[in-house]
Amino acid sequence: MKEELAKKARMIEAVLFDVDGVMTDGKIYCSERGETLKAFNAADGLGIKLLSDFNVLTGVISGRNSPALRYRLAELNVKHLYLGAVDKLSAFEQFLEQVKLTPKQVAFIGDDLPDLPILTRCGLAVSASNGCNEVRSRADYITDRQGGDGSIREVVELILKSKGLWEDYIKGIC
Amino acid sequence: MKEELAKKARMIEAVLFDVDGVMTDGKIYCSERGETLKAFNAADGLGIKLLSDFNVLTGVISGRNSPALRYRLAELNVKHLYLGAVDKLSAFEQFLEQVKLTPKQVAFIGDDLPDLPILTRCGLAVSASNGCNEVRSRADYITDRQGGDGSIREVVELILKSKGLWEDYIKGIC
Amino acid sequence: MKEELAKKARMIEAVLFDVDGVMTDGKIYCSERGETLKAFNAADGLGIKLLSDFNVLTGVISGRNSPALRYRLAELNVKHLYLGAVDKLSAFEQFLEQVKLTPKQVAFIGDDLPDLPILTRCGLAVSASNGCNEVRSRADYITDRQGGDGSIREVVELILKSKGLWEDYIKGIC
Amino acid sequence: MKEELAKKARMIEAVLFDVDGVMTDGKIYCSERGETLKAFNAADGLGIKLLSDFNVLTGVISGRNSPALRYRLAELNVKHLYLGAVDKLSAFEQFLEQVKLTPKQVAFIGDDLPDLPILTRCGLAVSASNGCNEVRSRADYITDRQGGDGSIREVVELILKSKGLWEDYIKGIC
Repeated sequence: MKEELAKKARMIEAVLFDVDGVMTDGKIYCSERGETLKAFNAADGLGIKLLSDFNVLTGVISGRNSPALRYRLAELNVKHLYLGAVDKLSAFEQFLEQVKLTPKQVAFIGDDLPDLPILTRCGLAVSASNGCNEVRSRADYITDRQGGDGSIREVVELILKSKGLWEDYIKGIC
Repeated sequence: MKEELAKKARMIEAVLFDVDGVMTDGKIYCSERGETLKAFNAADGLGIKLLSDFNVLTGVISGRNSPALRYRLAELNVKHLYLGAVDKLSAFEQFLEQVKLTPKQVAFIGDDLPDLPILTRCGLAVSASNGCNEVRSRADYITDRQGGDGSIREVVELILKSKGLWEDYIKGIC
Repeated sequence: MKEELAKKARMIEAVLFDVDGVMTDGKIYCSERGETLKAFNAADGLGIKLLSDFNVLTGVISGRNSPALRYRLAELNVKHLYLGAVDKLSAFEQFLEQVKLTPKQVAFIGDDLPDLPILTRCGLAVSASNGCNEVRSRADYITDRQGGDGSIREVVELILKSKGLWEDYIKGIC
Repeated sequence: MKEELAKKARMIEAVLFDVDGVMTDGKIYCSERGETLKAFNAADGLGIKLLSDFNVLTGVISGRNSPALRYRLAELNVKHLYLGAVDKLSAFEQFLEQVKLTPKQVAFIGDDLPDLPILTRCGLAVSASNGCNEVRSRADYITDRQGGDGSIREVVELILKSKGLWEDYIKGIC
C-alpha cells in the first residue's frame, strides 16, 4: 500500500457507500411491482459487519430506495441511511453534522456522476473498478473488484490494514 | 472520436433502442407467470435521463413486452414505446412521422437480426458489443460495453460529447 | 466451417437440446417454492424460432422440469418435450420413433454427463463451451458461446449455413 | 494430480461445504421479504448427487439460512445441515461426532474468513477460486471454477478420481 493512501485510510472513522454499481453490479431487477429484487454480495456483507466490530461507522447514500435494499441494510446493521437522495452532497453534509466528523475522517465508495461532489470532498475517495471515467480519475483508490463482487470488502481490508488491525484479527480466528 | 462518427452523432435529436441484449444482457427471466423479471442497468438509466435533460428524445422498439419493462421505461421517462413490435421498421417509420424527424436525426442501438432494417436506415447505427455479426458489420459504432452493462450509457456520452455538451455538464456537478 | 462438420450439419432435420447449462448458464434459481425462476437467452430464442421457420423440428430433453421452463418452451413453440427425463437415451429413442427420423438426422446440444448417451449416438453432437471434459471430448462441435449466452443460436446458424439457407435469409430482412 | 493431494483426497469419506461464494457466486438476492432467491449450479448438483451414489457423506455449514437454501439441499439429498451457524468450528465438531469420522476423512470447501477454523483442521481444505487471500493461502487445493460455477463439482471429480472410481463410472454411462 502506498504511504499516501495508507495515511488517508488511517484517518477514516466512517465509510459511506453508494448502492447501485457499488453494493451491487449495477443491475436493476424490475418486475411489474417495481424494483423488487436486488443482488448484494456475501463478502461485502462480512466486510461491512467487520467495520462495525471495529467501531467504524457505516452508511449509505443512494439516489434509489426499495424495500429489498432496506432489508439488506438492516441485516448488516448499517445505520446511517440516505435513500432516494436527490442531492447526495447535502446528505453527506447532514451525515457529517450528525456524527460530528470532518470530511477527512470519512471514506466514500462510488461509481457514477452523482457521487462526484462527495468524492471530491471526502477523506478517502474510492471508485469501484466499474466506475465511470470521471469518478475513476478523481479517486484516491480504484478497487480491483467490481461493484457487487467485493469492491466494498476490498476497501474494508485496506482501512483495517492501514490501522494495523487486520493481522491480529486474522490470527484470532484461525 | 473519428470525425465521421462525430458528424453523425452531432445530428442526433432522438435515440431509440432495442431492449433484450441492449437494455439488458439478453437474459429472459421466466417464472410460471411468464417473463416476470428483467435486469436493467443503473448507468444506462442515468444516461437515458441525461438525454431527456438535454432535450434528446428517447424511445424503445422491442419485439417483446412485459409489465417489468413498462415499469422501468416509465421510471426513466422514456415516452416513445413500440412494444411487442412484429415489424420494427414500421414502428421506426411511425416514430419519424410522429416526431417530425428525418432518419439522419435518429440513432438506434440494436443487437440482433430484427434490428437490421432500422440500423441500415437510421442516422447513427449502433451495435452493442454482443451484437450478432450481421448487426456489427452494419454498425457505425460498436460499443465497448455489453448490453445491460452500459452500452446505452456509452452512446449517450458519445452523442453529448459530439455536441460539446459533456465537459460543461461535468464541471457543473463537481 | 470444416467440410466434415458441414456434411453432418446438412443432414439435420431436428435439433434437440438440454436445458440447464445449454438453454441457461446452469444457474438453478430457487425460492421457498422450489425452482421458481429460469434465465433464458433472447438470441437463442430467435434462433429456435428460425429453426421452426425453416421446418427443422425442435425439442428438449431435460432431467428437470418446472413451470418456468414450460412457459418459455411454449413461447418458443418447442413441441417435443421430454422433461424430468431420468433416462435421456430412452427419451431420444422415443423421439426418433415419433418423428420417423434416424439418429443421423438429429443434432443434440448438451453439457454434462447425462447427455453422453445421446451425444455418442446422434448425427451432430454439440457441447456448449462450458460442457464437462467428457462431453467436450465426444462432441463434433464445441460452441464458442456459453450455455445461456447464445450457444444454441450458434448451432442454429451453423446448420442453416451448412444448408445454404442463411445468406438469402439475411438479404431478405435488410 | 499431485500425489500429496491425491493421498489426502483418497481418505475422504465426507464433503462439507459453505454456501455463499461456494454453492453460489456470493450473490445475496433480497426482496422486501428478505433473502427470497438463491442461485445454485446444475453441474454442482450432479456432483453432489454423485457423492451420495458413491456413499460419500455430504453436508453444509453456513452462517446463513433461508427457505430457498433448504429447498435446494433437500432436492440434492444433503442430509447434514448446520445453517445459521454462528460458530462453524463447533458445527464441524458436532458433525465429526455424529458420523464418527476423524478430521482427516472430511473435506471442506470454503471461501471466506469464517471458514478458516475448519479449513485449518480438516483433511482436505479447498478454496473456491474466488476465496479471500487468507483462505486461498491455507488451502490444499484452489479450484479453477468459481463458486456457483462448478467449484463443488471440480472437488467431487478430484475425490472420485483419487479413489479410482471416475473412469469406470464414465464408461458405464456412455
